[in-house]
Amino acid sequence: MINAAGRDIPEQIKGIKDIKLYKGEFAYTPSTVKAGKKIRVGIPHTDKILENIDASIEKIGLKDGQTISFHHHLRNGDYVMKMVVERIAAKGIKDITIASSSLSPCHDFLINYIENGTVTALESSGLRGELGKYLTKNPQALKKPVIIRSHGGRARAIEAGELHIDAAFMAVPACDHLGNATGRKGKSAFGSMGYAMIDSAYADNVVLITDNLMEDPVYPYSIPQTDVDYIVKVDEIGDPAGIASGAIRMTKSPTQLLLAKYAAEIMEQTGVLKEGFSMQMGSGGASLAVAKFIREKMEKQQITGSFGIGGITGIFADMLKDGLFKAAYDTQTFDTAAIESIKENPNHIEISASFYANPWNAGPIVNNLDTVILSATEVDLDFNVNAITDSNGICMGASGGHSDTAAGAALTLIVVPLVRGRLPMIRDHVQNVVTPGDSVDVIITDRGIAINPKRKDLVEKLQGSSLPICTIEELQKIAYEFVGKPEEVELSSDDKDIVAVIEYRDGSIIDVIRKPILD
Amino acid sequence: MINAAGRDIPEQIKGIKDIKLYKGEFAYTPSTVKAGKKIRVGIPHTDKILENIDASIEKIGLKDGQTISFHHHLRNGDYVMKMVVERIAAKGIKDITIASSSLSPCHDFLINYIENGTVTALESSGLRGELGKYLTKNPQALKKPVIIRSHGGRARAIEAGELHIDAAFMAVPACDHLGNATGRKGKSAFGSMGYAMIDSAYADNVVLITDNLMEDPVYPYSIPQTDVDYIVKVDEIGDPAGIASGAIRMTKSPTQLLLAKYAAEIMEQTGVLKEGFSMQMGSGGASLAVAKFIREKMEKQQITGSFGIGGITGIFADMLKDGLFKAAYDTQTFDTAAIESIKENPNHIEISASFYANPWNAGPIVNNLDTVILSATEVDLDFNVNAITDSNGICMGASGGHSDTAAGAALTLIVVPLVRGRLPMIRDHVQNVVTPGDSVDVIITDRGIAINPKRKDLVEKLQGSSLPICTIEELQKIAYEFVGKPEEVELSSDDKDIVAVIEYRDGSIIDVIRKPILD
Repeated sequence: MINAAGRDIPEQIKGIKDIKLYKGEFAYTPSTVKAGKKIRVGIPHTDKILENIDASIEKIGLKDGQTISFHHHLRNGDYVMKMVVERIAAKGIKDITIASSSLSPCHDFLINYIENGTVTALESSGLRGELGKYLTKNPQALKKPVIIRSHGGRARAIEAGELHIDAAFMAVPACDHLGNATGRKGKSAFGSMGYAMIDSAYADNVVLITDNLMEDPVYPYSIPQTDVDYIVKVDEIGDPAGIASGAIRMTKSPTQLLLAKYAAEIMEQTGVLKEGFSMQMGSGGASLAVAKFIREKMEKQQITGSFGIGGITGIFADMLKDGLFKAAYDTQTFDTAAIESIKENPNHIEISASFYANPWNAGPIVNNLDTVILSATEVDLDFNVNAITDSNGICMGASGGHSDTAAGAALTLIVVPLVRGRLPMIRDHVQNVVTPGDSVDVIITDRGIAINPKRKDLVEKLQGSSLPICTIEELQKIAYEFVGKPEEVELSSDDKDIVAVIEYRDGSIIDVIRKPILD
Repeated sequence: MINAAGRDIPEQIKGIKDIKLYKGEFAYTPSTVKAGKKIRVGIPHTDKILENIDASIEKIGLKDGQTISFHHHLRNGDYVMKMVVERIAAKGIKDITIASSSLSPCHDFLINYIENGTVTALESSGLRGELGKYLTKNPQALKKPVIIRSHGGRARAIEAGELHIDAAFMAVPACDHLGNATGRKGKSAFGSMGYAMIDSAYADNVVLITDNLMEDPVYPYSIPQTDVDYIVKVDEIGDPAGIASGAIRMTKSPTQLLLAKYAAEIMEQTGVLKEGFSMQMGSGGASLAVAKFIREKMEKQQITGSFGIGGITGIFADMLKDGLFKAAYDTQTFDTAAIESIKENPNHIEISASFYANPWNAGPIVNNLDTVILSATEVDLDFNVNAITDSNGICMGASGGHSDTAAGAALTLIVVPLVRGRLPMIRDHVQNVVTPGDSVDVIITDRGIAINPKRKDLVEKLQGSSLPICTIEELQKIAYEFVGKPEEVELSSDDKDIVAVIEYRDGSIIDVIRKPILD
C-alpha cells in the first residue's frame, strides 16, 4: 500500500494492530476521547518511600508482557533505565516493552536484555549507537518492529491511549516526600521535565527514582504528588558529564555557518523576521548557528521576537536574557547554560511534550511557530526529510520534534550540506521519511537553495533575491557532479525484516525501516 | 436505607443514577479509570478569538440538555455566569445543567432562568442567598435535586467522569491569544484558579472569557492553551468589590477569640505544634483567629511549619512572608492581601482542586495535613458537622473543603459557639451532615471542649489539661440550660421534596436536604 509520502507500507506488520496510512499532515479527524489513568485512593499520611527498586517492582505488581516507560532528559548520562531493567530481569520478569521518550548510546546495555528475553519490544523517538546497529542487523531479535514516534506523536499516543504505560520509572533530580518533583534542583539537574510530565500523568503506576530526596516542599513541581505512587532513593540517577557537557558552542565550520547565514537571509527576505515573530532552532550545528545571524539582524533592526521553542540551548537562553525574545518554551534543556537559565529566568518556561507538539489538543505551541530551522540526515526530490537512518540504512538518529515543528511552522527551513562523506544528500528518495515534503518549504544547502514548488508565495517573494535559488533537481545534479550518483542500498523485502515502523505524529505510518542487505 | 452517618437515604432519587450509600471515609475502592476529554486536532495558525459569547455558543454547538461549568473564583463579584446564561436563553436553548464550583448571592438571577426552563439542574459546592431560599422552598423547580459536592469531591467527580462537562465557560483575568490564562494579572485578578484548572482539563469544550487579552505570552499559566478552544473578550468579568473586598481582618469577637485560643492550646498540648507541622485554617472568624495564637507560640518556641493549605488569606500570607511556614498551597485566594502574595511570593503556590483534595488520586495535599480548624453551622452528639443548612433547614452555606480536610488531617478541630441566636449548636442530630463524625476529632465551644471518644489517644494526651474538657453530652446539656431544647424542624417526607443530595467526597450519598414544612 502506497501512502501519501509515496512509501510502500505492508498491509500487515507483526505486532501492529491497526495500520493507518499517512494521508497528509492533518488528514485524520479523531473521534475518540483521551485515555485516563487508573484511579486509586490516596490514604492520608501514607509513606510513599520504598527501600529500593525491587520493592517498587513488587508494589506495582509488574508482570510479564507489560509496558514500562522512561524519559531521556538525562540523555547519555542516564543510569536509571539500567538500574530498573536489571532488577526486573533479576526477578525473572519477561516480555517487557520499553517505551522511552528516546534512547542514547548509554542504553546499548539493552542488547543483553533483548537477547535474554527480558525486553521484547521498544518504542522510542530515536535509535542510535550499538543498539541502533544491532537492531538494524537483527530486527527479529524483538517480537515486533520498534515504533519510532516524534515527541508530539508520543504525547499524542499516550494521551489517546495507543501507548498504554503500566509503570513509569521516572528519574528525578529532586523531589519531596510527597512526590512533587522537579528537574531544576540537585546535582543531577537537567532542566525541563517535558517528556516525563506526560508519562506521569497517564501511567497506571508512577515510581520516582531520585538522588535528591528533599525535606522541604519542592516547587514549582513538574510532576505533582497526585500522580506519584512510590519514591525510591538511590545514590546517583546519572552521570553529570553525560547529562549535559557544558554549553553547546557555536559552530566554526564554514559550511554550517553558510547554511545558517542563508537561513537567516531567507527569514528576512520572506518577511518572517518582524516584530513579535517566533522560531525554533534545531540543536544541530547549522540550525543553531542561525542564532548568530538572526541576532545581528534583530539588533540592527530593533526587532523583539515573541517566543522561541525547544530544545532550548544556552545560545537561545542568551538571546532570551538579552531581551531579544520575551519567552522560551522548553520541553528539553540542552546544555548547562540553558539549565542555569531555566533555574533562574522566569521567562524560560517548562512545557510538556503535549504542550510542545501534540497534534491532538486545542493547540500545541508548535502551531504558532513562524519558522523552524531543522537539519536532516538526507533529503529527496519530493522534499521528504530523513532524520533517523543514514544513507546506508543504519538507525542512528531520532524523529524528535522534526515532523512536529515542520507541520506547525509557517516556514520550515531544512539546512543540509549538499555532500557529506562523499555521498550526495539530495536523493531520489530518502532512505526513510521522518518529515514529509508536505511540511517542508525550503531546502538550504551550501551550493544552492531549493524552494518547494507548492509554496508559490515563497517563490514569488524570493524572486530577484541575491540568494542562490535553484530547483531541487538542479541541486541534485550539482551533487552528482561532485561525487557521482550513489548506489541504492539493497533492503530485505521480507516483512519479518522490518526494523522499525515510523509513525507520523498523528499515528499513521509514514514509513518502515527495513534491514539492509549488507555484503 | 440508613447510611454510615446514620442518615435515611431514599432507595431512589429522581435524576440520580446510582445511589451509593456513605459507608465510611475510605470505604470504597474504585476500579475505574479517569475520564478523558474529547480529542480534537489543533490546526496551525488558527485564531481562537471570537467576537462574542453568542459566537462561542454557536461554535461549540451547545444543545438542549447539556452541562456547562463555571468556577467561583470571582465570588460575589462574578459577571460571567450571567452573561453566558443570558445568551444561552436568548438562543432558546433549554434544559441546561449548571455545574459551578460554587454559587454566591450574585447568582440569584438564576431563579428567572430556572423558572423559564433554561436551567433545569444545578451542581455546586454551596447554595446561598435568595437562590438557596428559593430552592429550599421550591425543590420541584428543578428536574432533580441539586448535587452538593465538596471541592475535592467535585474534582473527583469530574476526573472520574461522573460530572461530564460539555462546555466550560471560564472567567479569566488575563490570557494571551493562544489561550494561556492566569488569575494573577489584570484588573480582575483573583489569584489561584484552582477550581478552573480541573474544568478546563476535562471539559469537552473550553471557552475563556476575559477582560484582559494580552499581546505577550502569559505565564506561568494556570490553564494551558492546549485545553482552550475559544476566547471571548468582554469589558468586565467581575465587580472588583465583589471579587475580594480588602484584607480579611482578624476577628475582635471575644467568643471567636476564645475558640481560637482553645484550638491553639489543643494543637500545642497534643504535640501537633512542632517543627515542620502543616495546617489549614478555615476562613471563618474563629478558625482564622487561630493564626494569632499559633503565631505567638511558633515565635516563642522558634518553630517553623512546613506548609499551610487553603483557601489562603492575607493572615496566612503574612505568616508565610514572615517565614513561619515554608509554603502555602492555594486553591482559592481569599482576599486582596493574599492576591498580592500569590503574585509576588514564590512560596505561595497555586494548586488545582484535585491536588488540594481529590480523594481519588495518589495523594492530595489534604492527606498530609497535621491539623485543620473548621467552623460549622451546627454539630451533633455523633460529632457530625453541618455546614450547608441552618438550624431551620434553609440552604445557606457550602460544603467547600470541609469534609476533604477533615478526612485528611490527623487532627480535625471544629470551632463553634455553644449557642447562636438563641439556638443550641449541639443538636441530637444535625439538620444535615456535610462532614461525618468519623472525621471529627475535637469540638471546641466557648463553654467546653468535647473529644471524639474514638480518639482515645487524644483523650489520654489531654488528661489533666487545664482546658475545659467534657463530653459532647455535657456540652449539649449546658446549651439546653441556657436556651432550652429546640423544636425539631418538620421536613417533608415526600421524595419529590428533596432539595439537594449531599455527596460525600467519594461520591457516596451522606445526606439529603429535604424541604422544611414551614408555617
